[in-house]
Amino acid sequence: MEEQVEMVGRAFVEHYYHLFDSDRSSLASLYNQSSMLTFEGQKLQGVDNICTKFTQLPFSKCHHLISTIDSQPSSFAGGIVVFVSGSLQLSDEEHLLRFSQMFHLIPTPQGSFYVQNDIFRLNYG
Amino acid sequence: MEEQVEMVGRAFVEHYYHLFDSDRSSLASLYNQSSMLTFEGQKLQGVDNICTKFTQLPFSKCHHLISTIDSQPSSFAGGIVVFVSGSLQLSDEEHLLRFSQMFHLIPTPQGSFYVQNDIFRLNYG
Repeated sequence: MEEQVEMVGRAFVEHYYHLFDSDRSSLASLYNQSSMLTFEGQKLQGVDNICTKFTQLPFSKCHHLISTIDSQPSSFAGGIVVFVSGSLQLSDEEHLLRFSQMFHLIPTPQGSFYVQNDIFRLNYG
Repeated sequence: MEEQVEMVGRAFVEHYYHLFDSDRSSLASLYNQSSMLTFEGQKLQGVDNICTKFTQLPFSKCHHLISTIDSQPSSFAGGIVVFVSGSLQLSDEEHLLRFSQMFHLIPTPQGSFYVQNDIFRLNYG
């Protein structure tokens, strides 16, 4: 069970940043109308607002490098909390930006997961 | 509602790090037998294991400086996810250590909250 939670967390993280780095608009498949995102302190709710935020971020290309992934079952039946740390490489920036991000994943009736909670912060050193 | 979630998150964070920095053993009041902690990748479950970990950390005094607190309602009825970034000052260390931490708070029948999920990571730059 615990191993499965770690596996789901890792698979989700890989999938999520692959979509983010290749086609941000496709992240819409991972959120729904109740989803919440806090991005650098800005609060957004619902798949449309969240994906508009992602597609309007002021850089064209980016690449996420993952350092750590920690996952735990949440109290919500079948839910998983995932905590990620890593670095973000922007196409126009020489330096990597360190970030941390947490997700609360909720199972769907179709056997997949959607993101209920998403909180992202850059780590200034 | 949203404002209340932010208030609870901030009050919890203030209380949590005050206990941590003044008497780590008193953190036992915030966890129960189902609580989970992942501390720098090490997984612990239950209030006893979690508090033993805290009291055995290899420093006597520390001080948490909070940079950001982001809170959202979780799917779990009345639950709140809290994401914290900040710096940790250890008594024997000159440099501050940057950290990120997330909590999933679940309401108790007594009108308070306990920590169901706790994930802590130092941010290496």
